[in-house]
Amino acid sequence: MLAAQLSNDAMPAPARLRDAMRYAVLGGGKRVRPLLAYAAGEAVGADPGNVDAPAAAVELIHAYSLIHDDLPCMDDDALRRGKPSCHVAFGEAIAVLAGDALQARAFALLAQSQVGDPAGACALLAEAAGASGMAGGQAIDLEATGRTLDLTELSAMHRMKTGALIRASARLGARASSGLSSTQDAALDEYAAAIGLAFQIVDDCLDGEGTGARIGKTAGKDAANAKPTFLSLLGASEARARAEALRVEAHNALKPVGDRSRRLAEIADWIVAREF
Amino acid sequence: MLAAQLSNDAMPAPARLRDAMRYAVLGGGKRVRPLLAYAAGEAVGADPGNVDAPAAAVELIHAYSLIHDDLPCMDDDALRRGKPSCHVAFGEAIAVLAGDALQARAFALLAQSQVGDPAGACALLAEAAGASGMAGGQAIDLEATGRTLDLTELSAMHRMKTGALIRASARLGARASSGLSSTQDAALDEYAAAIGLAFQIVDDCLDGEGTGARIGKTAGKDAANAKPTFLSLLGASEARARAEALRVEAHNALKPVGDRSRRLAEIADWIVAREF
Repeated sequence: MLAAQLSNDAMPAPARLRDAMRYAVLGGGKRVRPLLAYAAGEAVGADPGNVDAPAAAVELIHAYSLIHDDLPCMDDDALRRGKPSCHVAFGEAIAVLAGDALQARAFALLAQSQVGDPAGACALLAEAAGASGMAGGQAIDLEATGRTLDLTELSAMHRMKTGALIRASARLGARASSGLSSTQDAALDEYAAAIGLAFQIVDDCLDGEGTGARIGKTAGKDAANAKPTFLSLLGASEARARAEALRVEAHNALKPVGDRSRRLAEIADWIVAREF
Repeated sequence: MLAAQLSNDAMPAPARLRDAMRYAVLGGGKRVRPLLAYAAGEAVGADPGNVDAPAAAVELIHAYSLIHDDLPCMDDDALRRGKPSCHVAFGEAIAVLAGDALQARAFALLAQSQVGDPAGACALLAEAAGASGMAGGQAIDLEATGRTLDLTELSAMHRMKTGALIRASARLGARASSGLSSTQDAALDEYAAAIGLAFQIVDDCLDGEGTGARIGKTAGKDAANAKPTFLSLLGASEARARAEALRVEAHNALKPVGDRSRRLAEIADWIVAREF
């Protein structure tokens, strides 16, 4: 699905730009956002084929954000998923453009999806990706380097930087079902907000404990950059306890959704238990 | 309209990121793309209020592309519209994010516009902005620096880099009318393709002749960067003659559109006659 969206048929493009886009998207990754979209769709009875477009769109947005976050002027990370970052492999200029073009591609395929309310889906994705969401969170993160955020500020930053797109992933997947109720939508949003924060707390713990080989990116960077993290504010034990509490909160949030939400519950478990 | 789209009410965002977005969008510029959208809407009987969203969206996309084009890793231009470029004023990291967030904002407002077929409009804009359009053209432009493009290659590059968004501007403006016919759509597309190329030829001529103060950006950069241009390939006299031929082609293309296309014809005249 992702490869097809970046093929020459779907997207005629200069070869080197397309290579950079494919490198950034198809080079692995946990695919958490598409998984969430499909699992949320399943939870509310959507046809899985109707989830293909939103699942691909959120992953393209995520991939673009990683390219730009890794740039020398941003987090300056040379390693991503165990390989050279996009700008190391293709140069900074093409990396900037590959990110830009992936964002456009995400909206193109969602707008063309013909499922449910594609304009509403585009609006939801755009709000999650933009200044009030992911890009805004990254701006707060950048400006926080070297100074102290308290726990409230750190949580607010992560709600925007990673939480907004994770919530959009679940909600867009569920919108592929015409039977989605507002109660289910709200429940999935609450579930996704909890696992989004849990995901970040676990990420911080893994960065503090991990090695580059295991997490596939440069480890220990947060401490080296004097970045505030849940680990630095709470310590490992309290951070892990918070993640566990959020896992339980996520399970509880799923109650109104019903029996088909088993996979979402498993994703919550995996997010907290994962070691990479 | 543009200022309202970037207000705190419309877009809650970190202050510095919003400041950078507003700086890039509200700091002047010729507003050619919104003008085209409104004039194309008028040509086919659209309510001007219904053109507000597409007109703002295309300008936001244009503004984001200028921020990223000016980055040190791209064209490395410190001056834009007679003022420090966004990355000079706000730093590179915020400039990258401001561009990213402006692209998202463009899709958000178009998707929320409730006029005609917002999903179709998003798809059209995304194709024009992405790897098959503007971003793809910029990638070709980058890789062409220092080597020779022939006239066919140069024209193809500019059809993507600037032409795609100019065509989308006219077509999106016209789509605000429910009475738009496919004949009119095709005629406006042909018109916009001609003036898009004319615009670039005149830009190249002005860069070769101009001063920084008059064109509001660093003049003579094309020659300094050994960039192929219409001026370098054709010489001033032949380049000007091509622009004039495209102006006539644009006028002819408007014939099926009818009497209300007077403003579009005037825009074609202005594009070729302008001195900045």
